[in-house]
Amino acid sequence: MIDFDKSGGLVPAIAQDADTGEVLMLAWMDQEAYEETLRTGQACYYSRSRGRLWRKGEESGHVQEVRGVFIDCDADTILLKVHQVGEAACHEGYRSCFFRKVEGDQFQMIAERVFDPRQVYKK
Amino acid sequence: MIDFDKSGGLVPAIAQDADTGEVLMLAWMDQEAYEETLRTGQACYYSRSRGRLWRKGEESGHVQEVRGVFIDCDADTILLKVHQVGEAACHEGYRSCFFRKVEGDQFQMIAERVFDPRQVYKK
Repeated sequence: MIDFDKSGGLVPAIAQDADTGEVLMLAWMDQEAYEETLRTGQACYYSRSRGRLWRKGEESGHVQEVRGVFIDCDADTILLKVHQVGEAACHEGYRSCFFRKVEGDQFQMIAERVFDPRQVYKK
Repeated sequence: MIDFDKSGGLVPAIAQDADTGEVLMLAWMDQEAYEETLRTGQACYYSRSRGRLWRKGEESGHVQEVRGVFIDCDADTILLKVHQVGEAACHEGYRSCFFRKVEGDQFQMIAERVFDPRQVYKK
């Protein structure tokens, strides 16, 4: 039903805060991640850097409880409405990964950190 | 500044309604589309099916006036906050491309058409 073949097995998946509408992040799903998300009710992605299934929050505990799954017109993009546990979706400690605004040829910080990544990831 | 090389020259770009927070669509940008978007203040994408720059609304008139451009932590995804002219972002006539909700192994329609594609595209 979802066109995973179009882009070599992966489709983009947008995570949006179910309550506020804030776009939290974009990650990628393969068939397995999609099915695991539906089965568990928690967002699972495919980590391109690790080359494997990524249960969002597996290290940080900041899981995403899925409130709704939506598909676009071409069936090649997924939108998740989620409740973000731990207040932050971004591994850098921001609520949303989109914490920088483009202003001319500069990036401007528009958010404050919710957590310190060194504390959460123990790295 | 944006990592266009990571995925072969294209990065995903999310268009979100600047007023309501509704996610309208996801499309793709190459360097040219990104620069054209910043230069013109209207969303330009790269059409994978047509293999060229796509000025959103060039056929329908339903352009997207850009209110803000945001970059994610890895600088490989773009978020546009836009004002959608013509009330609908989707070429199928829906306000958002995400007009279907996944319910079990079914897709459920969750939106009404705003326009008739046959009238708008004259096809």
